[in-house]
Amino acid sequence: MYLNRVDIADMERRYRAYRANLINCLSGFKAANLIGTADVDGHSNLAIMSSVVHVGANPPLLGLIIRPDQGDRHTLHNILQVGYYTINHVHESFIDQAHQTSARYPRQVSEFVATGLQERWMKGFTAPFVEQSAIAMGLQLREHLPIRLNGTHLVIGEILHLLLPDETVAEDGSIDIAGAGSVAISGLDAYHSVKRPRRMAYAKPDRAPVELKSL
Amino acid sequence: MYLNRVDIADMERRYRAYRANLINCLSGFKAANLIGTADVDGHSNLAIMSSVVHVGANPPLLGLIIRPDQGDRHTLHNILQVGYYTINHVHESFIDQAHQTSARYPRQVSEFVATGLQERWMKGFTAPFVEQSAIAMGLQLREHLPIRLNGTHLVIGEILHLLLPDETVAEDGSIDIAGAGSVAISGLDAYHSVKRPRRMAYAKPDRAPVELKSL
Repeated sequence: MYLNRVDIADMERRYRAYRANLINCLSGFKAANLIGTADVDGHSNLAIMSSVVHVGANPPLLGLIIRPDQGDRHTLHNILQVGYYTINHVHESFIDQAHQTSARYPRQVSEFVATGLQERWMKGFTAPFVEQSAIAMGLQLREHLPIRLNGTHLVIGEILHLLLPDETVAEDGSIDIAGAGSVAISGLDAYHSVKRPRRMAYAKPDRAPVELKSL
Repeated sequence: MYLNRVDIADMERRYRAYRANLINCLSGFKAANLIGTADVDGHSNLAIMSSVVHVGANPPLLGLIIRPDQGDRHTLHNILQVGYYTINHVHESFIDQAHQTSARYPRQVSEFVATGLQERWMKGFTAPFVEQSAIAMGLQLREHLPIRLNGTHLVIGEILHLLLPDETVAEDGSIDIAGAGSVAISGLDAYHSVKRPRRMAYAKPDRAPVELKSL
């Protein structure tokens, strides 16, 4: 199948949902994360997002693309107002509840209450973690870049707190996120468990590719 | 295990590789893509990246975080100079070759030649596709946002060309990228095949989560 820009634009009138499904699959697999925030009155909010991206390791920075026109209004507002938020991996045991956070609850209804995912507050940190997540992080907002092309926003935060199970961290610092039960997303609504990986050694121009055997 | 910001910073002197492995796993699963570019003299370049992110469906926009200090210099330079590039899904059949593109080849050596991945040129489009990729896209640069926090760059491109196998596109427009053989990445060097997904119906605040059975 070959599609060009005109074909994709033509989908607008007839197949808007078709196009949304198609284009949302194209970047490839995505991380499944729940973004925890609160407003200045302490009302908590939880939203599933597939747009977390690694920005840097030192300092430890994660980016998040937020689409306020498509249901992420509370999340963006809270992050910009309060300056702190959490990123919590979706675990294969609560995919349904995590997906349910994408329903349009009114502001006064917390997705935590509505879905049964448990809030966990850390002393001195003004955004809620998800208790059931094996891997969770608390971040402070460091940069906000509006993307004027389409009204979305890139927020970048620095990791201040990191919680994860000891047994998932290898001697070299890598984390077995598949073994920890984290899932991947494709498209708008497909949640995948992930197989054990092939790990590749650092690539060198004068050497053939080498697979790392398990540490 | 609990780590705070001071713990992570302390890793610098003693465990730089440890920290890089750890932090690179935190965002979750990532898409595995090969970015194809050429310079103004037509020298092709191919680089594996795990930082492609969906920005929007209409117009169809994909973002890419580029770290020029860590080996992506040619890619960024070519994209900014020429304005066109390709994004090609890594397929499970050529993980080794895809990973090998991360080796530091000198500018005059094309990763296509060095790894055996085949260049494919489309008439009128000035960046090379990867022949062996089942799912591939040609993009035009639309926005360049430097991330001053850490010297990285967000480039956003609009999809002008899309190539994919007919049999992977469902009636609702979603693409079975797992069935197409696309892989996910975790951390810096782990490549995962992905299991068949659970698809969830559009979430509504007054209804329990519903799984979509296969279309």
